[in-house]
Amino acid sequence: MPLQRKDLLGLEGLSGEEIQLILDTARSFKEVGQRPIKKVPALRGKTVVNLFFEPSTRTRTSFELAAKRLSADVVNFTASSSSLQKGECLLDTVRNIEAMNVHTIIMRHACSGAVNFVAEHIHASVVNAGDGTHEHPTQGLLDLYTIRECKHDFSGLVVTLVGDILHSRVARSNVHGLRKLGATVRVVGPATLVPRCFERLGVEVHHRLEEAITGADVINILRIQLERQDGKYFPSSREYANLYGINARRLGLAKPDVLIMHPGPMNRGIEISPRVADGPNSVILDQVTNGVAVRMAVLYLLSGGEGADENLD
Amino acid sequence: MPLQRKDLLGLEGLSGEEIQLILDTARSFKEVGQRPIKKVPALRGKTVVNLFFEPSTRTRTSFELAAKRLSADVVNFTASSSSLQKGECLLDTVRNIEAMNVHTIIMRHACSGAVNFVAEHIHASVVNAGDGTHEHPTQGLLDLYTIRECKHDFSGLVVTLVGDILHSRVARSNVHGLRKLGATVRVVGPATLVPRCFERLGVEVHHRLEEAITGADVINILRIQLERQDGKYFPSSREYANLYGINARRLGLAKPDVLIMHPGPMNRGIEISPRVADGPNSVILDQVTNGVAVRMAVLYLLSGGEGADENLD
Amino acid sequence: MPLQRKDLLGLEGLSGEEIQLILDTARSFKEVGQRPIKKVPALRGKTVVNLFFEPSTRTRTSFELAAKRLSADVVNFTASSSSLQKGECLLDTVRNIEAMNVHTIIMRHACSGAVNFVAEHIHASVVNAGDGTHEHPTQGLLDLYTIRECKHDFSGLVVTLVGDILHSRVARSNVHGLRKLGATVRVVGPATLVPRCFERLGVEVHHRLEEAITGADVINILRIQLERQDGKYFPSSREYANLYGINARRLGLAKPDVLIMHPGPMNRGIEISPRVADGPNSVILDQVTNGVAVRMAVLYLLSGGEGADENLD
Repeated sequence: MPLQRKDLLGLEGLSGEEIQLILDTARSFKEVGQRPIKKVPALRGKTVVNLFFEPSTRTRTSFELAAKRLSADVVNFTASSSSLQKGECLLDTVRNIEAMNVHTIIMRHACSGAVNFVAEHIHASVVNAGDGTHEHPTQGLLDLYTIRECKHDFSGLVVTLVGDILHSRVARSNVHGLRKLGATVRVVGPATLVPRCFERLGVEVHHRLEEAITGADVINILRIQLERQDGKYFPSSREYANLYGINARRLGLAKPDVLIMHPGPMNRGIEISPRVADGPNSVILDQVTNGVAVRMAVLYLLSGGEGADENLD
Repeated sequence: MPLQRKDLLGLEGLSGEEIQLILDTARSFKEVGQRPIKKVPALRGKTVVNLFFEPSTRTRTSFELAAKRLSADVVNFTASSSSLQKGECLLDTVRNIEAMNVHTIIMRHACSGAVNFVAEHIHASVVNAGDGTHEHPTQGLLDLYTIRECKHDFSGLVVTLVGDILHSRVARSNVHGLRKLGATVRVVGPATLVPRCFERLGVEVHHRLEEAITGADVINILRIQLERQDGKYFPSSREYANLYGINARRLGLAKPDVLIMHPGPMNRGIEISPRVADGPNSVILDQVTNGVAVRMAVLYLLSGGEGADENLD
Repeated sequence: MPLQRKDLLGLEGLSGEEIQLILDTARSFKEVGQRPIKKVPALRGKTVVNLFFEPSTRTRTSFELAAKRLSADVVNFTASSSSLQKGECLLDTVRNIEAMNVHTIIMRHACSGAVNFVAEHIHASVVNAGDGTHEHPTQGLLDLYTIRECKHDFSGLVVTLVGDILHSRVARSNVHGLRKLGATVRVVGPATLVPRCFERLGVEVHHRLEEAITGADVINILRIQLERQDGKYFPSSREYANLYGINARRLGLAKPDVLIMHPGPMNRGIEISPRVADGPNSVILDQVTNGVAVRMAVLYLLSGGEGADENLD
């Protein structure tokens, strides 16, 4: 089954079937990553451009490796050195890139909605690699993949997202994906960062950590962006760690086989204790490995690939 | 027919036949860009280095894609992180790169003549990607390609270049190429930016836009480099737009099938109105597409490729 | 014979046999660099990451070309744009990269020992591309390769290292390698930069240049890092040039067929005169060429390649 879409902009717009198709296809690509020769010719002769208007190495590298393992040609185009500094408008920049016969544009931008705007105006496929506080769909998909790999089924699962839900595109993509696949989602953090209105997305809103993680199957710990907070949302990182940091003691409230997830980079000792980060429940590095497989699946399916059952060689 | 040259430094030194050979070869490569697999093995196992001493994404990306579609290995070497910061002389930097068995060096430099200087001192092929206010030959070639594709023949054509001719390497390369192929060239702009002495290059010098575009077959609009002007060459960007901006009304003075060209990035609303930029006469995005094909042709021919009629597979 | 190691961290830990195996293998790869198609499929489908926490273009490019000529996928990961700016710890950054199924990490870091620390904690192969003032083993190996190519045998050879021995990882790697292969090593420079304690490494310590280069077979001239000195270690670069600069007159003290080496970038007119740098005894550009071959050999052997005699196609 092919994915009948030009773009991947967010999980909000995908059906549960489409999400499962991507996850199934990612499973085949994860197997490719375990071979001695981690490469398939699926996108040979196609060009993928990483168009990042915010600095990123982690996500950019993951996409770059995904594209290279599909045999695509990859070009990195970073905003700092681009024509935007010379006053060019966003759409002209993107149309220029597209005019070089580029097949897929992977785009990150500080403004929510910028990626959707671009996707509407060009013919090339667009993959959202994070737009403002809106969505980060491949992060959401790799989180779903990691949960599915361990727990097999989403129905009946309790997944708790901890931290700065308000500003988190990772949280938004997770909430949309998890709800579509049937999980129960709790969000928890200070009231400044987890406003009550999130209930409209179909999640439970909590402000006491203990309550939110009791009986949880998965705890997904968001990064506290210390560089952005400066006392506006909570008094200090020490206070945050005291109230919302996940440590070994608190882990006891969750199910014994709870999965500990974090999109990285981690602030060890603040939102997560080193013992939890490196402990037996942690699947944080599996998330990274799965990220490459999920991104391969997305690039492959958007280019018209036939999905999970096809022979990928 | 091969191109009997080690380097491409400017259009001034090329014959009309050599220019036509490059354009013919580019036509074959443009066809490659329209295939599902946009790749030929012509430069497999050869190394192409992008050596940019001025920031650029647009031109660098175009060269990078051209080289990758020829199956070359491409390395980007930017000045900001290079040994030049440690006081190394230019020739030592370039000889070092050459000593790594590099086949072609694509070089941009802020000093006019720096690329010619380097080319004389090394054995590797050198392609000028813009040197100071001197030449930008692949931009000139892609402009010629775009004109030839639409107008078929240069004899009798009137091509008007609008803007900062004085500082423009794009203008210089265009003038040399267009004159060799038999077009009539007009240049127009404020007297500070279009001095009378340009007549020695065999072009008509104008200071009134209306006069210069009347009956034109092609209007090539140069970018006003606002970041460099600060009132030295004209009072304000608003004044410039009033006197020299190309808008729909003024377009009526040119031939009905006039081609509107711009090397980008555009200052919409200053040298070009959005309606003209996006209108039916605009071939601005075709220029970008053709740029990759022309650069493939240049890299291919300099490496000893046999030119247009050969089987590129 | 394979190299039975996961990592290349320094020459101090290698046996003479291991060094010779790498040099023998490099000889095969140097031959590859002279073919029209400079590429072998040895690392196809494997991923090599350049992880540079100090700016470098020369070494990074040499490793990048080496990996590409082995058909590996190469990703550049520079610290300036990385998560380390967001406070991530070094080991988390490296483990993240490894989790993307990366095969080899080439790492440069300002802290001596940082590369060894990382290598102990991950499963991927780690190649030290320079750590603080500790070691720069591939530079040491390419220097040994260049000497062996010209002089065939190390026993009885006198090799003089000139300059800032104290802060030089290049000097340390050279000393370890040369001693293991049986050469006599002299180090010379101001007492502030060449402390007496270096005798413990089995080298002769000199402070008068004339004495140190008399009868030398090889003079390896280290770069004076003007940006770091500011009068702390010697009064001025002019004084340094007077006392320790290698010029044509001083060259007469060494053997007539003395090899002049320099790891680059050179300060012409300070530690080396232009006539010496470009003269018939100079093998400075051969060092650069050999660097790619040596790095191909290292990447190949660490990935389990069988060494010199194998068919590399």
